[in-house]
Amino acid sequence: MIVEMRRGAIQEEIDGVVQRAKSLGLDVQLNLGTEKTVIAILGSNTGQLPIDIFAVLPGVESVTRIMKPYKLASREFKPADSLVSIDGIEIGGKRIIIMAGPCAVETKEQLAEAARVVKESGASILRGGAFKPRTSPFSFQGLEKAGRELLAQVRKQYGIPVVTEVVDPHDVDLVAESADILQVGSRNMQNFALLTTVGKSRRPVILKRGFSCTVTEWLTAADYVLAGGNDQVILCERGIRTFEDSARFSLDVSSIPVIKNFSHLPIIVDPSHAAGHYSLVPALAKAAVAAGADGLLIEVHPNPKEALVDGLQSLTPSDFSTLMKELRAVAKSVGRYI
Amino acid sequence: MIVEMRRGAIQEEIDGVVQRAKSLGLDVQLNLGTEKTVIAILGSNTGQLPIDIFAVLPGVESVTRIMKPYKLASREFKPADSLVSIDGIEIGGKRIIIMAGPCAVETKEQLAEAARVVKESGASILRGGAFKPRTSPFSFQGLEKAGRELLAQVRKQYGIPVVTEVVDPHDVDLVAESADILQVGSRNMQNFALLTTVGKSRRPVILKRGFSCTVTEWLTAADYVLAGGNDQVILCERGIRTFEDSARFSLDVSSIPVIKNFSHLPIIVDPSHAAGHYSLVPALAKAAVAAGADGLLIEVHPNPKEALVDGLQSLTPSDFSTLMKELRAVAKSVGRYI
Amino acid sequence: MIVEMRRGAIQEEIDGVVQRAKSLGLDVQLNLGTEKTVIAILGSNTGQLPIDIFAVLPGVESVTRIMKPYKLASREFKPADSLVSIDGIEIGGKRIIIMAGPCAVETKEQLAEAARVVKESGASILRGGAFKPRTSPFSFQGLEKAGRELLAQVRKQYGIPVVTEVVDPHDVDLVAESADILQVGSRNMQNFALLTTVGKSRRPVILKRGFSCTVTEWLTAADYVLAGGNDQVILCERGIRTFEDSARFSLDVSSIPVIKNFSHLPIIVDPSHAAGHYSLVPALAKAAVAAGADGLLIEVHPNPKEALVDGLQSLTPSDFSTLMKELRAVAKSVGRYI
Amino acid sequence: MIVEMRRGAIQEEIDGVVQRAKSLGLDVQLNLGTEKTVIAILGSNTGQLPIDIFAVLPGVESVTRIMKPYKLASREFKPADSLVSIDGIEIGGKRIIIMAGPCAVETKEQLAEAARVVKESGASILRGGAFKPRTSPFSFQGLEKAGRELLAQVRKQYGIPVVTEVVDPHDVDLVAESADILQVGSRNMQNFALLTTVGKSRRPVILKRGFSCTVTEWLTAADYVLAGGNDQVILCERGIRTFEDSARFSLDVSSIPVIKNFSHLPIIVDPSHAAGHYSLVPALAKAAVAAGADGLLIEVHPNPKEALVDGLQSLTPSDFSTLMKELRAVAKSVGRYI
Repeated sequence: MIVEMRRGAIQEEIDGVVQRAKSLGLDVQLNLGTEKTVIAILGSNTGQLPIDIFAVLPGVESVTRIMKPYKLASREFKPADSLVSIDGIEIGGKRIIIMAGPCAVETKEQLAEAARVVKESGASILRGGAFKPRTSPFSFQGLEKAGRELLAQVRKQYGIPVVTEVVDPHDVDLVAESADILQVGSRNMQNFALLTTVGKSRRPVILKRGFSCTVTEWLTAADYVLAGGNDQVILCERGIRTFEDSARFSLDVSSIPVIKNFSHLPIIVDPSHAAGHYSLVPALAKAAVAAGADGLLIEVHPNPKEALVDGLQSLTPSDFSTLMKELRAVAKSVGRYI
Repeated sequence: MIVEMRRGAIQEEIDGVVQRAKSLGLDVQLNLGTEKTVIAILGSNTGQLPIDIFAVLPGVESVTRIMKPYKLASREFKPADSLVSIDGIEIGGKRIIIMAGPCAVETKEQLAEAARVVKESGASILRGGAFKPRTSPFSFQGLEKAGRELLAQVRKQYGIPVVTEVVDPHDVDLVAESADILQVGSRNMQNFALLTTVGKSRRPVILKRGFSCTVTEWLTAADYVLAGGNDQVILCERGIRTFEDSARFSLDVSSIPVIKNFSHLPIIVDPSHAAGHYSLVPALAKAAVAAGADGLLIEVHPNPKEALVDGLQSLTPSDFSTLMKELRAVAKSVGRYI
Repeated sequence: MIVEMRRGAIQEEIDGVVQRAKSLGLDVQLNLGTEKTVIAILGSNTGQLPIDIFAVLPGVESVTRIMKPYKLASREFKPADSLVSIDGIEIGGKRIIIMAGPCAVETKEQLAEAARVVKESGASILRGGAFKPRTSPFSFQGLEKAGRELLAQVRKQYGIPVVTEVVDPHDVDLVAESADILQVGSRNMQNFALLTTVGKSRRPVILKRGFSCTVTEWLTAADYVLAGGNDQVILCERGIRTFEDSARFSLDVSSIPVIKNFSHLPIIVDPSHAAGHYSLVPALAKAAVAAGADGLLIEVHPNPKEALVDGLQSLTPSDFSTLMKELRAVAKSVGRYI
Repeated sequence: MIVEMRRGAIQEEIDGVVQRAKSLGLDVQLNLGTEKTVIAILGSNTGQLPIDIFAVLPGVESVTRIMKPYKLASREFKPADSLVSIDGIEIGGKRIIIMAGPCAVETKEQLAEAARVVKESGASILRGGAFKPRTSPFSFQGLEKAGRELLAQVRKQYGIPVVTEVVDPHDVDLVAESADILQVGSRNMQNFALLTTVGKSRRPVILKRGFSCTVTEWLTAADYVLAGGNDQVILCERGIRTFEDSARFSLDVSSIPVIKNFSHLPIIVDPSHAAGHYSLVPALAKAAVAAGADGLLIEVHPNPKEALVDGLQSLTPSDFSTLMKELRAVAKSVGRYI
């Protein structure tokens, strides 16, 4: 950490900073500039210390963090790429993994038809929500228990792994019974009670980025899951909130190379929630693959016009099948395959 | 809702929209412009319908919502101001209510000293966190059970009502035993499992605004609590995330008159979390009162330099006492009192 | 436009809105809902009317625009894709056009070497700035006149068209003498005096998106140039300002399909200014091509370590050459070529 | 500046950074941590150096600026508050200065009536635009020359100083003839050609904050004007662009104490453009005064319903008169007067 003292800070104030650093077992190097004193505070755990510890001291102008606040998710901690394995399907390797399906589980027929389409088009994993966090209490909230049972049935019948969202820490074990991957949604990225609980699960976890969280906060949230002992974490970029309103969220495509640079964890992209409209999904999906994403999470519905949730951003089976062909070409152009 | 058809939309597509509206029991009025057809869909519940229901239909260009998606929190639903009452202290009336105290409960001495200072300066309610949601798993997470017990003791000893945060839906009843007001934090504003549970509690609830949620989403989240039967909801503006980084968050001061216009619920302001630095707190606190806030939630710590959490944004007892005097003058200038 | 009256608006207020609409030659259709009156205002020019005209009237709650405020740039106005032609190079067709070169013209050797590299790698157009708008008055501001002369020399010597920025309306004619394409920078997207002047020029114009302007404002700014009679407008996405700071700006990749949907104008992407760091440029460049961009504007410098401006985001000749090969593969995968 | 080397950076790379710093006449202090080398680069002008100079060197992970990039506008450069004086009216002192009037000059009658109202209510300076930068080329662009003449007439007749906007560098002298204060609008905050020209003028300048510019960029833009020799600069906060859309822009009220901390320049607030709606203006105006603003710039129109520009955000004479009374009370409560 770099502590910049105010111009005119007195010796006693400088000493105060130095003493606090030493009391925490940290090294200190003083830079006595002509105008200002700058104090470098050195140590391997400074990333995990709150900057307030120094910023609150008398005579301090500002404190700048040099080390990142996340640790276990960082590439410095683990230089090699992590692979997450589900039923022999590896995420984070040369193959790009496509997960697809409806936003919400609605009926047996709907889910089975989705599973058929998804499998036929060459996707590997079925998605479907049993618990739906909705902005308004008056909207459809998911089938809950019945939804989980349908997922379990279809997963068995079609032999396809399943990803579904978990929203309450106390449901984690239950949901883990009928799903191969647990999804933590965007609005729960900083629900630390939930993160701690999925960290104790044996199931791989998709950690969606909070729509207003920085990459740094996202990797620090991943630290919660990793610190619990669960190292099967998949990051998922799904668009951030900005001033632009022509899409529902702005897909932060540069987060893909940034994550690859700073972290060993695989990253997938959800173009459907970013777009908010089916017509934008193919362009975003292709951009994500070209930029280096390890997988995609795409909404597909047998009949979007009748969908109970998010029909507008769901692809039809036919559009999805076309997109899969296009994605295969783009994957090949960047040296990967689907 | 206003459905704008694409230029060149055919009769069958227009009929599709009309039929869907009628199947939902809604009225329809067609505007056959020279260039485009625009369909107005009328009915008292259109605010609670997702726009996807129409946007997904063939030939539709865009759908614009006219009615707001929230209902119970709206001033249209309840024109008169709501008052929330805690031990005879009314929030939402002419008196501006000050809640103050440390971010986290640390020790008996710290909390008792804070209570003394807060009471002596004329504030009405003590704040203090027993569960602290922290960005990093390696940071101090609060005293939890021991913290709740300290709150209960100090509340009894000083005869001062207490507000504390609840983070897990399964802790609501427990926390309600030792606190007079339940706080839902910014990162949990869209934790719908938690909102539903506090909606069933008898305790008043402070609903902090998600730092990237719109006023509309905030009032829709309030609908979750109100729909559960708990009408003692206090909104709390605490800064939004923007590109500007000279303060930790940007206090959205205009949300105060906006909320007063669209909702009957009282609104308080937390200048400490918005500022992130003690030196900015007084200006923001005074601005909030001048703009019409019904109360303030301010961090005060007997010794900010030793605080375990958020020391940088905490006022010292002496600075808090000075600020209270200034706030009394500003309150008087806008026809209110503290 | 849709005018929503306040609940309880009286007949006189409704009449006021109707009369104002009629006085402007517009048609009106009244929707007398059970709770509110909604007035649809119809006419082909409502997009160009400010909403204030109605919003300011007594009894009005809100006014929603249905028609877009831009006109000449819209696909409704001109359904077929526009092609911009420079010396036989067509932008907006099947071929993806690469423009590359240094941020600022520094010396004859630097510019000539850049031209050689750019041409050898298969790019079509040389970029280089003579006037550099810099955040601080103490930074290098460009060679100005000498820079323009160097551009003219190198353009002739290497037979490569040149794009350069113009910052002052009174320089447009001068700059047009030594450049084939005029660039309007991000900070000038709403410099209407400049837009009006380049609208009168015969040179094609690259209109960079203001880093905090919406797609709608961008197309409305294009209307300024088009309204002046210059229909050779190329849009350029270069990243928007958001809360995320791991890249200098957030590339709004979804603006590409959005522009293709709403406008007939070609769109190119500047991955260098969005990234701010050379290591992120290749991923963003490939994403842009995969998403449908008609071209790229890339910073390349013979020796980035010695660059006077923006060295950090410049590719070396060798990295640029590698990227060009990768881009050819991605272009082919989406049915285009470079 | 603090240069953080990559883990594993070799000696040659470290030497490269040190040599570049020395070649620029800067001092260097090496911090050889156990995991990383961090190099502090010291010197009084490091704030004005681009970070790219070091960030581009091999082995560098990141560069952090400690010194601010602005200089002349900083409180470190000039510790005492600056006062700007217009016809004996001092801005930046204990008195809060109110500037008011219509957005655009429309007719002699309108401007004269506005001047009368403004003066009668106790405001000191008349505002009115002759050149109106408008988002769409099809909107009213101001009376231009005729507008300037009307301003000159009314200013003389009512003996009230006048502020008006200048948009083209070549108009500065002309506009300075009929106006006492030159306004640089939000969209021109980084129009460096214009800043340079007003820096050479003798007229005081109101520099409006770019709606997506940071406080740091704003003060660096002020450096352009100050560097030209014009030290009569007044900063004006007018709302920033965020995701929130219940007001036109989000007034960044915390920028007021931040500016007071980092700069010696006076700061005023424009609540009208931030709000976008007359009903929000009073709350924002009062908040600005309570937070420490040195003045306000408020839109008032004799008849907002007939205004050609921005009628929705203009106060009527009667509402303005009421607001002035309220503002006097708030000013008094914070130890100032109007």
